[in-house]
Amino acid sequence: MHVTFLGTGSGLPSNTRNVSSLALDVTEKGEGVWLFDCGEATQHQILKTPIKPRKISKIFITHLHGDHIYGLPGLLSSRAFLDGTTPVDIYAPKGLQTFIETAFEISGTHLPYRLYYHDLVDGAVFRSTNFDIHVKELNHGPISFGFNVSEHNQLGELNVQKLQALGLKPSPLYQQIKAQPNTTLPDGRIIHREDVVGPDKQGRVISILGDTGPVEDLVDFIKDSQLLIHEGTYEQALVNLARSHAHSTIDEACELAKLGNVDQLIINHLSQRYDPHQLNGLLAEAQKVFNQTVFAYDFMTYTVKRRS
Amino acid sequence: MHVTFLGTGSGLPSNTRNVSSLALDVTEKGEGVWLFDCGEATQHQILKTPIKPRKISKIFITHLHGDHIYGLPGLLSSRAFLDGTTPVDIYAPKGLQTFIETAFEISGTHLPYRLYYHDLVDGAVFRSTNFDIHVKELNHGPISFGFNVSEHNQLGELNVQKLQALGLKPSPLYQQIKAQPNTTLPDGRIIHREDVVGPDKQGRVISILGDTGPVEDLVDFIKDSQLLIHEGTYEQALVNLARSHAHSTIDEACELAKLGNVDQLIINHLSQRYDPHQLNGLLAEAQKVFNQTVFAYDFMTYTVKRRS
Repeated sequence: MHVTFLGTGSGLPSNTRNVSSLALDVTEKGEGVWLFDCGEATQHQILKTPIKPRKISKIFITHLHGDHIYGLPGLLSSRAFLDGTTPVDIYAPKGLQTFIETAFEISGTHLPYRLYYHDLVDGAVFRSTNFDIHVKELNHGPISFGFNVSEHNQLGELNVQKLQALGLKPSPLYQQIKAQPNTTLPDGRIIHREDVVGPDKQGRVISILGDTGPVEDLVDFIKDSQLLIHEGTYEQALVNLARSHAHSTIDEACELAKLGNVDQLIINHLSQRYDPHQLNGLLAEAQKVFNQTVFAYDFMTYTVKRRS
Repeated sequence: MHVTFLGTGSGLPSNTRNVSSLALDVTEKGEGVWLFDCGEATQHQILKTPIKPRKISKIFITHLHGDHIYGLPGLLSSRAFLDGTTPVDIYAPKGLQTFIETAFEISGTHLPYRLYYHDLVDGAVFRSTNFDIHVKELNHGPISFGFNVSEHNQLGELNVQKLQALGLKPSPLYQQIKAQPNTTLPDGRIIHREDVVGPDKQGRVISILGDTGPVEDLVDFIKDSQLLIHEGTYEQALVNLARSHAHSTIDEACELAKLGNVDQLIINHLSQRYDPHQLNGLLAEAQKVFNQTVFAYDFMTYTVKRRS
């Protein structure tokens, strides 16, 4: 379960940072790849990664600014050329469907797979096989959303000592005991799974937020995430500019991460005004506010680990 | 006056060929840069060239397939961020305006400059300060057009020998004589410009065609062009595939160039199935049909010269 950043700049592309997109790879859970935002040339960025467009099963759009959506018609069309045949669920603010359908109608595009549109509203919860995705409205110009992706807890490990104390040696029976709530042994005894497994393995939690200025009650939403991905368009000295464009400063993202007790903060949507040297300086400042902070860069990957 | 190829592949992008776009730089004529087609990530390609988006004054769209238009909303938005304030004329098949306006409405984009839309029809002629642009309908799935860009002839050079025979030595008077049809000398004599300039300098002619299968009467349209830019999606062995997708083979493009007596043929819109080695072989074959043939590649530039 890992994240690949496909575009980490704000507003318009540069030669080093494309406009917004990132991929959450949940193929290990059998759920394909989920895309968050899809700025222009996201499909071009994907060409430089191991991601297969046909594996993309869900697309989440935080808000409808062009630098977050203009790559969708091309990506969805190319997915068809590249043997994509399975449906795609699209979670987006109302209006996106009109954009995509107009693009396809004008260009005469007919996809060989279905798109299912889900309008985002504050407080919505979408449930997949292994995850709950909570939705929260943020504070940007157009309506903008954040997502809290919570992996369901998993059954704990079998307690081998307990099983052996019951006279059961390692055998295929172990898997059977783990697979069902109760197992009747050949001698008639009934083994209740809950008696022989350890505590649940806590699911991992990732919070991925769209463009936003500070939001008062956001701490609860992102609380204890293993990973928080938050915009940090400007340095703290430009806080007034951040306010007028409804963006956050880097320090504001760090403050939230600290209050939310997250394991790792990755800041994306960095203004294209900053060169790498400036960013080094800003990162040093940011880490004084919250040590576990890094800046995203295009093609950076991050593996999400369980809290130990 | 030169052409820069920004995307030379067909259908979907690869790591070496982007989808369709090319720029005709007529800044030497004071008319900015003209874009022909604008597939996704054209603005990203432009970032790697000296072209300034604010200099783009006209955009010609051959047809409405996604790989020729999906870069427009992003390019036009970024042009605004990059100090573009002057209007842009867009020449396109009917329908493009709806695509762009929907993209802008959904994304809340408001350009600080005007777009003027001109619907293309077969036989139309658009006139700029220095060029006539003739439009011809081609033969593709959706309606597709070709453009013949003809530079106006320019006044010939002053015949210095004749002027000196009239007793006129080189002086600022020479420019005055060239600048107006008749000039009255201090001694009362009248000099008629037509008597003292050489023959007109013939304007250059470039033919840039959209996706098309063969078209019966196309020879006259492209006749004697200094440069013909023509698609060649497939090799001749795949002529049936070319017919079923309303595309041309490389050899068909060469045949047209030969019949049209053009100075140079550049073939673009090459199928992404061909690797560089295969293209070398196909080019050798193509040059047997028409020697002055090259394949376009991304970022290739070509300077258009007058026929000597």
